[in-house]
Amino acid sequence: MKKLSDRCRTQGATLALFALLSTLLPLPARSDEGMWTFDNPPLKLLQEKYGFTPTKEWLDHLRLSSLRFNDGGSGSFVSPHGLALTNHHVALGQLQKVSTPQKDYAKDGFLARTRAEEMRCPDLELNVLIAMENVTARVQGAAKPGMKDAEALKARQEMIAKIEKESLQATGLRSEMVSLYQGGEYWLYRYKKYTDIRLVFAPEQQIAFFGGDPDNFTYPRYDLDMALFRVYENDKPIDSPNYLKWNSRGAADDELVFVSGNPGSTSRQDTLAQIEGQRDFVFPSILQSVRRRLDVLRKFGGQGPEQHRQTLDLVFGLENGLKALEGEYEGLQSKELMAQVAKRENDFRSQVNGNAESKRAYGSAWEEIAGATKKLGARFKQIRVMSFRNLQMTSKALTIVQYAAEVKKPDGQRLEGFHDADLESLQFSLLSPAPAYPEMEQALLTDRMQEALEVLGPKDPYVVALLGGKPPEQAARELLATTKMGDAAFRKSLIDGGEAAVAASTDPLIVMARRVDPLNRELTKWLQDNVESVETSAGERLGKARFAVYGKSAYPDATFTLRLGYGTVKGYSMNGTVAPPVTTFYGLYDRSLSFGGKYPFDLPARYAERKASLDLSTPLNFVSTCDIIGGNSGSPVVNRAGELVGLIFDGNIESLVGDFVYDGTKNRAVAVHAAGMMEALRKLYDAGFLADEIENK
Amino acid sequence: MKKLSDRCRTQGATLALFALLSTLLPLPARSDEGMWTFDNPPLKLLQEKYGFTPTKEWLDHLRLSSLRFNDGGSGSFVSPHGLALTNHHVALGQLQKVSTPQKDYAKDGFLARTRAEEMRCPDLELNVLIAMENVTARVQGAAKPGMKDAEALKARQEMIAKIEKESLQATGLRSEMVSLYQGGEYWLYRYKKYTDIRLVFAPEQQIAFFGGDPDNFTYPRYDLDMALFRVYENDKPIDSPNYLKWNSRGAADDELVFVSGNPGSTSRQDTLAQIEGQRDFVFPSILQSVRRRLDVLRKFGGQGPEQHRQTLDLVFGLENGLKALEGEYEGLQSKELMAQVAKRENDFRSQVNGNAESKRAYGSAWEEIAGATKKLGARFKQIRVMSFRNLQMTSKALTIVQYAAEVKKPDGQRLEGFHDADLESLQFSLLSPAPAYPEMEQALLTDRMQEALEVLGPKDPYVVALLGGKPPEQAARELLATTKMGDAAFRKSLIDGGEAAVAASTDPLIVMARRVDPLNRELTKWLQDNVESVETSAGERLGKARFAVYGKSAYPDATFTLRLGYGTVKGYSMNGTVAPPVTTFYGLYDRSLSFGGKYPFDLPARYAERKASLDLSTPLNFVSTCDIIGGNSGSPVVNRAGELVGLIFDGNIESLVGDFVYDGTKNRAVAVHAAGMMEALRKLYDAGFLADEIENK
Repeated sequence: MKKLSDRCRTQGATLALFALLSTLLPLPARSDEGMWTFDNPPLKLLQEKYGFTPTKEWLDHLRLSSLRFNDGGSGSFVSPHGLALTNHHVALGQLQKVSTPQKDYAKDGFLARTRAEEMRCPDLELNVLIAMENVTARVQGAAKPGMKDAEALKARQEMIAKIEKESLQATGLRSEMVSLYQGGEYWLYRYKKYTDIRLVFAPEQQIAFFGGDPDNFTYPRYDLDMALFRVYENDKPIDSPNYLKWNSRGAADDELVFVSGNPGSTSRQDTLAQIEGQRDFVFPSILQSVRRRLDVLRKFGGQGPEQHRQTLDLVFGLENGLKALEGEYEGLQSKELMAQVAKRENDFRSQVNGNAESKRAYGSAWEEIAGATKKLGARFKQIRVMSFRNLQMTSKALTIVQYAAEVKKPDGQRLEGFHDADLESLQFSLLSPAPAYPEMEQALLTDRMQEALEVLGPKDPYVVALLGGKPPEQAARELLATTKMGDAAFRKSLIDGGEAAVAASTDPLIVMARRVDPLNRELTKWLQDNVESVETSAGERLGKARFAVYGKSAYPDATFTLRLGYGTVKGYSMNGTVAPPVTTFYGLYDRSLSFGGKYPFDLPARYAERKASLDLSTPLNFVSTCDIIGGNSGSPVVNRAGELVGLIFDGNIESLVGDFVYDGTKNRAVAVHAAGMMEALRKLYDAGFLADEIENK
Repeated sequence: MKKLSDRCRTQGATLALFALLSTLLPLPARSDEGMWTFDNPPLKLLQEKYGFTPTKEWLDHLRLSSLRFNDGGSGSFVSPHGLALTNHHVALGQLQKVSTPQKDYAKDGFLARTRAEEMRCPDLELNVLIAMENVTARVQGAAKPGMKDAEALKARQEMIAKIEKESLQATGLRSEMVSLYQGGEYWLYRYKKYTDIRLVFAPEQQIAFFGGDPDNFTYPRYDLDMALFRVYENDKPIDSPNYLKWNSRGAADDELVFVSGNPGSTSRQDTLAQIEGQRDFVFPSILQSVRRRLDVLRKFGGQGPEQHRQTLDLVFGLENGLKALEGEYEGLQSKELMAQVAKRENDFRSQVNGNAESKRAYGSAWEEIAGATKKLGARFKQIRVMSFRNLQMTSKALTIVQYAAEVKKPDGQRLEGFHDADLESLQFSLLSPAPAYPEMEQALLTDRMQEALEVLGPKDPYVVALLGGKPPEQAARELLATTKMGDAAFRKSLIDGGEAAVAASTDPLIVMARRVDPLNRELTKWLQDNVESVETSAGERLGKARFAVYGKSAYPDATFTLRLGYGTVKGYSMNGTVAPPVTTFYGLYDRSLSFGGKYPFDLPARYAERKASLDLSTPLNFVSTCDIIGGNSGSPVVNRAGELVGLIFDGNIESLVGDFVYDGTKNRAVAVHAAGMMEALRKLYDAGFLADEIENK
């Protein structure tokens, strides 16, 4: 399952224009499509198609039982005592961080037999969406008529920082602005934030990710991709009525189900020019980077078991991302998909241009975005290589250098990510006690330097700043040989010491980061002035035009915020035959034996030892038509009664183009079945006490 | 699995031209491609790639243990006492013919517990290939220089009839001419013929065809598609050393295996023009016919269980054909496939045209074939509707009318199919005591009349002859209401009575057949003069050109004669993941439960009742890279030791384009595993005595 992707969405907002077109067109009939905000659930659609209208209480309870895992996933409360369910692959980063060379919980799993054994995660933050407030008028109003796009962007950013800070001060809740409908709406989301999260249970990665990279994003599937955490406050498990009741019967074929989670990013309302940009320069470039990173990690991991252990989470993430990107890229190259995108845009555009007033107000937005996209394309390779993504200590060094400079400024004028409302979570992440892996990072940094050298040439100022005049391998080795950035106390001393401490530091990574920082700021400013500001202004106008044409019967693109999806449990046509709605434990054993039990189809020993005790007909995974994407991993699947019947962990291969279009005939969300999880906890993992807590027995 | 298709191959032969080109080009390296004749096995390829060279004894034993099922399949001897193994779906026609409204062996299966219970099949003929003689010079020499194509065809046909008759008289063996390499070679094949074949075992159709039409031509698969017959002579089971030893260990992943069977028809050496013709008029037209026939049969079968029973074999065959045709047609519409075909032709053509002598000898052949194909296209719809295919009594009536006229003529001048060498098998088929289904035939004939009316119009002489001036429904009803063609004794009286009896008959089907016969002859003659003769002459030249360019390192297109395939047991990339080399009984239960046990994923009761006694890890099906096509159904899969390790029953969906091209990365032959068959016989069907006979215990 894809987590949040490499690509960031730029957010939009723009000039105020209130002309409404005379006709509201319904959106074309869509089968179970949509990642709906909880303020605008598709009540009419649900009533018409399924004769079901969720009540406010139903929606509130589901929302308050849903969790955002801030390192890129979703989850839900499944007991009154703070037990939280998500995927093993969402937990993987934390599992690795609590592991040691001696004890590999990521690979071997973990079970706390008592509360005392529950193991605190170093840097996991969970969020519950408490409130949503529409602040569109304030944000859009910040940009005054006559302002240039870049000024307008600045004004909106200042207003956003102000609103977030006010909210934080007034409520103490994590307060985040969300730009929806390409800037057509701005919402302030307030979250209850949890940072004392303890690991309770995880199975072996073997079974959580059974079938490995080959089976990833495919179906039929047989994965126990689950993990349990417990949420603590004041050193005690929380007590709360906001949890999902468990239903081990699961959902029947064709039954209506819902998904509540945090889809990361989609491009369904992007313009054709933007999607062509993804096809022509974003994907080819990113695919190249991901492949070389994987190459480096595989070589490093091949040196020995400890090296292999260190690469586990990163390799999973990159392989996962690569397979998703390849599937999306293949979609982008199909004429059919591009024709769909073009038709969608032409229909919309001809509606807008069919009316003189709306044409004047919105008609130029597409061309403006096309212009910005063209500029972006010209510098995209540079943007790609000027990134410290996947470099743990190196990226922290740059963030700390920026931090020291930014916090001195008035809140509204800081770089994005350094506003007052961001600082608590940022510090939590910067000061994580999770272990560093200097040798692995050296391998990755060497490659990153090599990549920058190849793309930009040896005389490029960024390359000069990054390499300090040395060959990549030597430069990276020297940077990582003596850095103390792996030590949380050292990082704290820099943050506490502020600009003076950062300026005085002789830590090699800090020294390098100081050289690179101005070049990064320059690029950020260029991006804001030339791309982001245009996309925001024009995007806001398109958002308004969309409301004018279609009303609010549409859902916004995904933004890694809480969304409601719906659909039915349903098989689909596949490769000449049909894929079934569910799979069973029988299929797990079949697939393993079919490959002679070879990796990645090997099973943990307990699966052979305890096979006789299992009811092999127990459902293990199932598919539904719910519309999901990376970030939805760990989302609960619930029935009409709001009971948990499954746990989203993947989409099928046909769903990868869901970034751009949704096809209800083939797009499927893959989930672990509620019954399969109980069967495993009770009969394979001696965790009947957890099953009892969950099933309230 | 596709049986022999609707389409017939025309056979080729031509003027003698002996110029050899100076260079012999090796064929491009191919992975396990080829349906090789037993006179020309790919010994060099096998030695180079697998370090294995089958001996003459090895090849002879495999050939003499292999069977052709003359109604469209393959099989093998698996015990010294005449036990013959094939697919349930090859046996299906016979199973239906021995069934009654009271006892449906096709659906419910059959087991003879003693020899006395073994049940004689009404019209099953099995052939064993005893000898192959190259008679190319005699056949090609029959056509003298200066003859027109049509004269040459006639001369070759006369020579062929003469050679076949000589052989029959000299040896008593079924003697058949085979045209290989588009007429580049002619071989006389002599068969030992068996007609006393008795049914020994068949499982329920439910499990033989588990997954039904959806799973047909797909993999992973879980079918027990097997049946056992016993071959008798003089009312006693034959005793013979020519049988395959059984190896229940099966073949390991990547192990070299062989397939010995009778692939029906391929078009890999057809010209681009011919393949375009298939795409442009053959497939669209035939697809239409097959769909309307299926429609009629489904409606008829929906009237009640007995009607449904009567349609079983025909519906299976048509659904099977439809899915295959659709897959092939999809392939023909892909630019990639057509580009491959075009490249193949261009490479070959530029070799031929690169040399002045060979250009003069062969260079015009492609254009001549293109011209004939164009003519064929212009009349193809007419050809399609002027056929009694799938009409049991109606087609027999026409055949008997023709028979009476033909046998009076000198052997060489008869219509194809009525030569002396053909008569014994033809009579065996015409005099079959199998039951007729007049109501089902009436429904089918009504539709056929309607189709002819729609395509040709009411004034067309064929339509007038067929309908006798009545509306289709009435015409068909009246033809079938009083006909005695369902009675084998009546048919015998007509055959014995000869032309006089046929001329005097007032049986309505015979009367209609007399009206239709001259129009059919006219069409046959037109086809011979305008299409077949050209394809034969030009095809023969292309065959010679091919030898000149590539030597005999190629195999000929399939001709429903015995061929040797080779390959390895191997999974493949599929739908984003990998398909395993084998499947197990675990998977059977998984797939059934995954669909809630609903048709066509339901299992016979014994599979629930006896589950505990099964070793579910037993392999059930497996795939190999062997190159097969419809007609190979029932072929044995053997290992280097010549032991039977599996039973071919299908190709995967990716293999459907194998009619035109072979792609070793994805094309797979699907087989029942030797171990799975033993496990089922012993533990599910109480047929341990058969398993013991087979395993020689």
